[in-house]
Amino acid sequence: MLHILFVLYAISHKHCSSGEIPTMNGNKSFEPSCPLPSSDKKTVQLAHGGGGRLMQELIQDIFVRAFHNPLLAPMHDGATWPVEKGTLAFTTDSYVVRPLFFPGGDIGSLAVHGTINDLAMCGAKPLYLSAGFILEEGLSLDVLQQVVNSMAKAAQAAGVSIVTGDTKVVDRGKGDGIFINTAGVGLVPSGVRIAPTLIQPGDAILVSGDLGSHGVAVLSVREGLTFAGNVESDSAPLHEVVGDLMGSGVDLHCMRDLTRGGLASALNELATAAKVGMSIDESAVPVLEPVRGACELLGLDPLYVANEGRFVAMVPESQAETALAVMRRHAVSSKAARIGVVTGRHAPPVILQTVLGTHRILDLLSGEQLPRIC
Amino acid sequence: MLHILFVLYAISHKHCSSGEIPTMNGNKSFEPSCPLPSSDKKTVQLAHGGGGRLMQELIQDIFVRAFHNPLLAPMHDGATWPVEKGTLAFTTDSYVVRPLFFPGGDIGSLAVHGTINDLAMCGAKPLYLSAGFILEEGLSLDVLQQVVNSMAKAAQAAGVSIVTGDTKVVDRGKGDGIFINTAGVGLVPSGVRIAPTLIQPGDAILVSGDLGSHGVAVLSVREGLTFAGNVESDSAPLHEVVGDLMGSGVDLHCMRDLTRGGLASALNELATAAKVGMSIDESAVPVLEPVRGACELLGLDPLYVANEGRFVAMVPESQAETALAVMRRHAVSSKAARIGVVTGRHAPPVILQTVLGTHRILDLLSGEQLPRIC
Repeated sequence: MLHILFVLYAISHKHCSSGEIPTMNGNKSFEPSCPLPSSDKKTVQLAHGGGGRLMQELIQDIFVRAFHNPLLAPMHDGATWPVEKGTLAFTTDSYVVRPLFFPGGDIGSLAVHGTINDLAMCGAKPLYLSAGFILEEGLSLDVLQQVVNSMAKAAQAAGVSIVTGDTKVVDRGKGDGIFINTAGVGLVPSGVRIAPTLIQPGDAILVSGDLGSHGVAVLSVREGLTFAGNVESDSAPLHEVVGDLMGSGVDLHCMRDLTRGGLASALNELATAAKVGMSIDESAVPVLEPVRGACELLGLDPLYVANEGRFVAMVPESQAETALAVMRRHAVSSKAARIGVVTGRHAPPVILQTVLGTHRILDLLSGEQLPRIC
Repeated sequence: MLHILFVLYAISHKHCSSGEIPTMNGNKSFEPSCPLPSSDKKTVQLAHGGGGRLMQELIQDIFVRAFHNPLLAPMHDGATWPVEKGTLAFTTDSYVVRPLFFPGGDIGSLAVHGTINDLAMCGAKPLYLSAGFILEEGLSLDVLQQVVNSMAKAAQAAGVSIVTGDTKVVDRGKGDGIFINTAGVGLVPSGVRIAPTLIQPGDAILVSGDLGSHGVAVLSVREGLTFAGNVESDSAPLHEVVGDLMGSGVDLHCMRDLTRGGLASALNELATAAKVGMSIDESAVPVLEPVRGACELLGLDPLYVANEGRFVAMVPESQAETALAVMRRHAVSSKAARIGVVTGRHAPPVILQTVLGTHRILDLLSGEQLPRIC
């Protein structure tokens, strides 16, 4: 008994930084954690994840206020809504980008854009998002508010609602400020089919814009580097240009957004899944000058750097110009370009025709250029 | 220039624990991180989240192998499937339980059961889950495999598929082994409506089983305590008993699963949302003896301790016995009991008739009894 009391005393002190041993409901004076939150009103506390009053306040004051919509309002365990007969798309992504804020965006807008884009790549019109937060004890509530406001703004701009959510708090040193998971549900218009297996030899390979800005923007602020020219993240929702493309009559065979691993990784994944080869013309791949300069300086290859508002599309050769014209009507894809062609199967599957006139294998990276870029 | 070279040298060394400055594609000899993974094949590396070959291997070898199903197979940015006209439910939860394994379950089975249960509480038949992993660099791949296998087993047992997913890796010391987010989509049968606002004065309040086992089981292993009797987590899927209840003709007004904050918090949330009062008979609330003993020793109130396979239901008084009979047919709710009644509105809304014959306010906790319990 003495032993267990000592253990409990130790537990109590381990969790309560104040060193107090609080009581609850008059039962016992030993507590395995802190039943009473500290008076600190400016940072996230473990109690914000406890299911009690502080969590309710956090949910009401920060999340519900920012995200308010009719499906969220009932505050039930999930959101429900009527659907017509059709095809649904469902996707998820977690966001652990470091730092939380970077030129052109933050973890909040990124978490909305990224999941919208995954739905768009399935040919779906995004409808509803979920938001799961893993907060680190000690996080500034002001920072959380900024991130949540940014999510709300990005969702509203894209015409989607955040309809269900969850908040967990982990102890100091067991997280990194904020991690966000968003899952998304969307509706695939009747007749739309987008899949790697539809890619055919002869298809034109189009990219929706210049590459590498997101990775370079995040890296610049993370490491305190400044480059000539301000590089901003390309983080943006792609569902409108994709919707327009699908409505234009272009026979979209496949699309993929170019996130971690960049263009090179996406092409390798698609070529492998489709059992085809791909030939890419390096000189046709748009990269902004400051991004190219930063990449050269840092020893990065822009074809492998993460983007958060760019995609690649495979369409029949005869429809490539129509597709490019549609894409260029949207600001997010105004620099769309034709960068290559799908060929018969060969291994390795993706070959780059370099600006020097040589050929280079564009392989999957073994490792990681930029950790925690999204 | 010298300055920036120094910065790059420092960055390179900071990220590469090996101290090597690797090269890539013959471009530059300075790298902001480790393009080449270490030869360690037994733990999670940052490169496992990088979108390259190592991530593909992780996805194929661990996730796809365990979760394989036709919707996951295309390996696209999301899963798509046809739906009929109806009502959908959508929910999400993140899981940060510590430790990862505990008597009666682990973070994997918990992540499946918890999200299934949130769908069940909306009256929905669970269909598909997403799985988002945030892994800490250095996590044992064996541990990850065990958790993933447990998820796959729990999903299969419950008749749901994990159809889309995501993996992120954070640097050592910025996570805690494994965090999992699962979102879920389910189908609400025609005519079903479950909502806090349907709760009426006079409704019977039923609980599906004994309370507090999950919290006590996790705490016991976390803190190395042993109690008389083995306490196992109650973690279990609730959709089958809920489906049976809905099919039985009982007019279910509302349900809620009793997770963080336990019975007391769930009742407070529901009573507030429904603008009613509730009166609970403490002597009718089932709590197993070892759980009660552990709670007394630890100064915990079992009415506030987290459960992961228990729910409360409000039904018309005249149907209470029918509902209890249905619930008791299922192992997961064999100890279902009637614990109280919905009354007219009063504040505070939930009153406990104690075993001593006195009244006690059953309020929301200000703080947190047991951090990271789910």
